Amino acid sequence: MPVPFEPQDPDYERRVRASFERQAAMTTIGARLAEVAPGRVVVELPYSKALTQQHGFMHAGMIGTALDSACGYAASTLMPPDAGVLTIEYKVNLLAPGRGERFRMEGVVVKPGRTITVVEGRAWAIDQGQEKLIATMTATEMTIAGREGIQH
Amino acid sequence: MPVPFEPQDPDYERRVRASFERQAAMTTIGARLAEVAPGRVVVELPYSKALTQQHGFMHAGMIGTALDSACGYAASTLMPPDAGVLTIEYKVNLLAPGRGERFRMEGVVVKPGRTITVVEGRAWAIDQGQEKLIATMTATEMTIAGREGIQH
Amino acid sequence: MPVPFEPQDPDYERRVRASFERQAAMTTIGARLAEVAPGRVVVELPYSKALTQQHGFMHAGMIGTALDSACGYAASTLMPPDAGVLTIEYKVNLLAPGRGERFRMEGVVVKPGRTITVVEGRAWAIDQGQEKLIATMTATEMTIAGREGIQH
Amino acid sequence: MPVPFEPQDPDYERRVRASFERQAAMTTIGARLAEVAPGRVVVELPYSKALTQQHGFMHAGMIGTALDSACGYAASTLMPPDAGVLTIEYKVNLLAPGRGERFRMEGVVVKPGRTITVVEGRAWAIDQGQEKLIATMTATEMTIAGREGIQH
Repeated sequence: MPVPFEPQDPDYERRVRASFERQAAMTTIGARLAEVAPGRVVVELPYSKALTQQHGFMHAGMIGTALDSACGYAASTLMPPDAGVLTIEYKVNLLAPGRGERFRMEGVVVKPGRTITVVEGRAWAIDQGQEKLIATMTATEMTIAGREGIQH
Repeated sequence: MPVPFEPQDPDYERRVRASFERQAAMTTIGARLAEVAPGRVVVELPYSKALTQQHGFMHAGMIGTALDSACGYAASTLMPPDAGVLTIEYKVNLLAPGRGERFRMEGVVVKPGRTITVVEGRAWAIDQGQEKLIATMTATEMTIAGREGIQH
Repeated sequence: MPVPFEPQDPDYERRVRASFERQAAMTTIGARLAEVAPGRVVVELPYSKALTQQHGFMHAGMIGTALDSACGYAASTLMPPDAGVLTIEYKVNLLAPGRGERFRMEGVVVKPGRTITVVEGRAWAIDQGQEKLIATMTATEMTIAGREGIQH
Repeated sequence: MPVPFEPQDPDYERRVRASFERQAAMTTIGARLAEVAPGRVVVELPYSKALTQQHGFMHAGMIGTALDSACGYAASTLMPPDAGVLTIEYKVNLLAPGRGERFRMEGVVVKPGRTITVVEGRAWAIDQGQEKLIATMTATEMTIAGREGIQH
């Protein structure tokens, strides 16, 4: 999507990074925020035995968790300073097993909106220097303004 | 769906429980297999600060992870003894914040098939004895037979 | 979901029926509004050669079209008198071919909300007196208030 | 996705065009097959009052119908000569009202597979020479081989 998005909040990166830091789930799974740009966020996740399913691959739900954060924060970069972001729904297609040394999840805004923002995510497995697309996501995010306890 | 499903594998429960035990991700998030019936599986998950998002609620991805396991194993109960189950895609609608003492995820088969099985999931938050529906899932599962490394 | 919904608009049925009448697409495909209850709408569709795909079954998109209307209007029954309903997204799982004399699509609200309402749909084929579940839908609907041109 | 797909069937275009011709639903809605390439299909649809919802915009289901055909046939271009394609599920996000003189739906394969092919679709409205993205789709398609009555 070669659409250059204009953030409403000049301080979007600091706001997104601070919020990501507060997601204990990201620390638990070992995810880190690799890139934050207007309408685009990249999350990286190393392989961890603790996050696997029965065949030793990364659990689809963990791929989904990191993708959900990438998509939610991609939406958040374009929201007003005081708004919170809430995921209404997401859908994941799993294209290949979660096998690799590390994983890169990218969320890119397709359509920003005052209330609803639609984001597409892609997850790649990185194995011995080779990248492989392993999952795609579509996520619908909602801007929450003026609701106590739901900020950033 | 009050359809009584007939399992092809009389030993389905032992097979599903053994596979669940091998999902390190379930141990990591503290999930346990609460019920295993033909076409229906219940997973329980206690609240854990380690699995939260920025507002202190359970991360949507973690709700999705436990729901994905419930749905995948619900499909697995109806599969042949030597088959493996693979999630092709899942979609989650988040209806309310993941706030509660513990969570119950139920996967129920809507349509079993030789290759494709469709499952519906629901997640409830349990707080001070009160139950609240917080998420729904639709998952498409595939039966994998005769592929090395993908069993159960 | 045996939740008895309380409509905000006592005149919801008349409002929904009037809106359905204005959907030219419903006339084109031969759909009719069979039932309108709080949080629940049934649309019926006869088989028509004109709506088929390459194997002579009803086109998945036409099943989706009637399901989308059933789900959208199910949400609409619970909305305020002057609100419009907009489908944000829907997902269909096709469980069996669209083969039958006629089809019944039912939309049932899972979670109503001020802004977002989540609805589940099911489509059955009716053939020689036998009913068969052929599709399921999850739809996310938005309440639109005070926007010119988007009413009911 | 700049992945050059290699069709298994050198005669894929003729096969896809012949199948599209047999979709009565496409004739009914006025859709035509504008482009057929390996892993990519474009369907065009003129605006028609007969396909509208209550506000005079194209019905979301009709956008979905044309997108579903574009995605299904995009998958079909990469399938063996004697295989049939079946849509297992699709999800549509509606980004803007279906307002325009005509519409272009593009389906592009993200991941082909022996059994499962995942396709992404995009719909644009064309109005006074301007293009606007109005919908995105993710569709999961299945290759059906050797099943009587399900061919192409």
